[in-house]
Amino acid sequence: MISLEKALQIVLSEVSKIRLLPPEEVGILSSLSRTLAEDVYAHFNIPGFDRAAMDGYALVAQDTSSAALDRPSLLEVIADLPAGYRTDKVVDKGKAIRIMTGAPLPEGADAVIMVEDTETEENKVKVFKKVKIGENISFAGEDVKKGELILPGGKFIRAAEVGMLASLGKKKILVRRKPRIAIVSTGDELVETGKNLGKGKVYDSNSFALFSQVVLSGGEPQRLGIVQDKREDLMAKIREGLSFDILILSGGVSMGEYDLVKEAMENTGVKMLFWRVAVKPGKPTFFGVRGNTLVFGLPGYPVSSMINFENMVRPAIFSMLGRKDWQRIKVRAILKGTVKKKGKRKNFIRVKLLREGGKYWALPAPSQKSGVLKSMVWANGLLILPGEVERIEKGKEVLVELLG
Amino acid sequence: MISLEKALQIVLSEVSKIRLLPPEEVGILSSLSRTLAEDVYAHFNIPGFDRAAMDGYALVAQDTSSAALDRPSLLEVIADLPAGYRTDKVVDKGKAIRIMTGAPLPEGADAVIMVEDTETEENKVKVFKKVKIGENISFAGEDVKKGELILPGGKFIRAAEVGMLASLGKKKILVRRKPRIAIVSTGDELVETGKNLGKGKVYDSNSFALFSQVVLSGGEPQRLGIVQDKREDLMAKIREGLSFDILILSGGVSMGEYDLVKEAMENTGVKMLFWRVAVKPGKPTFFGVRGNTLVFGLPGYPVSSMINFENMVRPAIFSMLGRKDWQRIKVRAILKGTVKKKGKRKNFIRVKLLREGGKYWALPAPSQKSGVLKSMVWANGLLILPGEVERIEKGKEVLVELLG
Repeated sequence: MISLEKALQIVLSEVSKIRLLPPEEVGILSSLSRTLAEDVYAHFNIPGFDRAAMDGYALVAQDTSSAALDRPSLLEVIADLPAGYRTDKVVDKGKAIRIMTGAPLPEGADAVIMVEDTETEENKVKVFKKVKIGENISFAGEDVKKGELILPGGKFIRAAEVGMLASLGKKKILVRRKPRIAIVSTGDELVETGKNLGKGKVYDSNSFALFSQVVLSGGEPQRLGIVQDKREDLMAKIREGLSFDILILSGGVSMGEYDLVKEAMENTGVKMLFWRVAVKPGKPTFFGVRGNTLVFGLPGYPVSSMINFENMVRPAIFSMLGRKDWQRIKVRAILKGTVKKKGKRKNFIRVKLLREGGKYWALPAPSQKSGVLKSMVWANGLLILPGEVERIEKGKEVLVELLG
Repeated sequence: MISLEKALQIVLSEVSKIRLLPPEEVGILSSLSRTLAEDVYAHFNIPGFDRAAMDGYALVAQDTSSAALDRPSLLEVIADLPAGYRTDKVVDKGKAIRIMTGAPLPEGADAVIMVEDTETEENKVKVFKKVKIGENISFAGEDVKKGELILPGGKFIRAAEVGMLASLGKKKILVRRKPRIAIVSTGDELVETGKNLGKGKVYDSNSFALFSQVVLSGGEPQRLGIVQDKREDLMAKIREGLSFDILILSGGVSMGEYDLVKEAMENTGVKMLFWRVAVKPGKPTFFGVRGNTLVFGLPGYPVSSMINFENMVRPAIFSMLGRKDWQRIKVRAILKGTVKKKGKRKNFIRVKLLREGGKYWALPAPSQKSGVLKSMVWANGLLILPGEVERIEKGKEVLVELLG
């Protein structure tokens, strides 16, 4: 049995031996929630020109040097300049151009006075306030400078990045291909949802939860269906799954099934790297590789399967995409019920975070059993009890890691 | 000028007058990241039968009452029961059935001893430990009880909920239709990305960022393109947008454009409810309604547009879906640079949260100007300065609200 830290290190080390997923070109709107596969530089300044940062009047700052509420400067308005247009007129001393936010600063002007500090009078404007050179001007390159590296490869693309790509004039961009991930549920007790549930049977739910987790982690899942605990069927499914980037098996880690899976792995050329991880839930978890395919064997218990996905498969997916940001957000909260554990394994307690009275409160799910999927429906966070911690009392401040 | 709280109250009050978005049926895999539009009850227990929670031996607990490491109980093994199967054999006193995790508990047995506490000897098993009645058994209904309300309408569907729907035997489910959201960028200075950038022009980026924000908030966006500051064009676009659930205009709030937009709103029957919000960035923001369509007018500055979307449009989308969970997660962090503001408006400072040495650190973006989209690329959180706060010193603990 190895620690989760060691297990993750083995997984990531295998990922690092495989080349990153290949790039593919997509339109920028389709690049949302993908991972950038190129360095994006600015080919021009943004804005491309000095412009008015406010609605007002472009003028020569010196003309306002003695301006005050009771002693306004009076300037001649020689033009009206909306955003998107230019003027050939020059702002000499004593003159001003009415200018809208975003319009290019006219020649001769070195400041903009806000419209709120002025009063119009026919073709003149009274300026009630002194402005400094450069005031209310957005200078060329204020947002982005020509030649600057704006978005480095490996960056996850959110709404701001899509907006930035548009403002850089990009229509298309290289992103990493999504990892293709095969999901196989194993077990004679499993029935496909929608079919009749016979005696002693349960509906397969893991492949549905795992499918969803893959989607949310940026992979492209495919359910290969349920496979019974039969040697040939299992080997055929594993072979099918080995054409993917990742193969996830769920179940098949119980004693009776275990030898079968182990043998099937050996016979299909999968090199097994670990078999057991010191976590609860989720101890019986294996990991292997064949060529460029990672193979995860997750427990059949729905909670174990989901949590081990988060702890091991999600970092592998991120890493294949060149992302490093798989750490969960940690939030301090007051524990609303005492939690305890037995044994030396690291425990992942499912909790619901609530905000009340300016604080977060962590409510442990009523049942922490690995078979109780309702605890994952309940939870939006995990409270992690390290090996040596046996209990944490109600009322203590704890660190909760956010799920999803 | 009204406060953000008041503005949001007006928006949500208008949403509450409109019926919720209609339900539509989708397969459970497609229900991920959608909002449930029905109450989901359990029609059967999960598990549907008492079952072994561990690999081991099903037995009569009383048979182990004197078992110990140096004095094992010896039981006759009468059958082997994998998960997914049943047996007609009865576990009488002195007998045991080898049982796998998930297999139904055979008649007569009232406990399961873990395989680790046993030793096999031909058709006998030595039991080295006392077990209590019920030990290592998952009882019928342990996860879900027949008749129980499992997922209430309005719940956002994550991976755990998809798994739960599968284990309840559901193939399809009712979710709220996504709100259809039209996005219009206004301004003579805007050029569509991919085209040549003339003098005094900038690429339209807001409609791309807004499109992405709508996707991430659970809406279905459509870009209606860029509209120039011309009366007829603007009115035609507004009319087109009024057939959607929400129309977002970006730009058109500068002085010169403002009267135009106001007139266009009046002429298309949009009732304006507010015009200015006491926030920075994003003061010039309007909101109106016509029939069942909400109309938001966001500022042309890219940061203002994005932040006001998060503060006003996103809650509106959630609310139309029946969701109430639009509050951002709040994380305590140490401020890495002094921040200050002028004026009484609530400020949204863009910060990057980093975790180092067991703490979060908040790094304010180098430029906090509304035109600097790079600050949104930089940030993963917002530090909110209420009206009365003028500065917060470097080194202070602050509350950062997470973006996305």
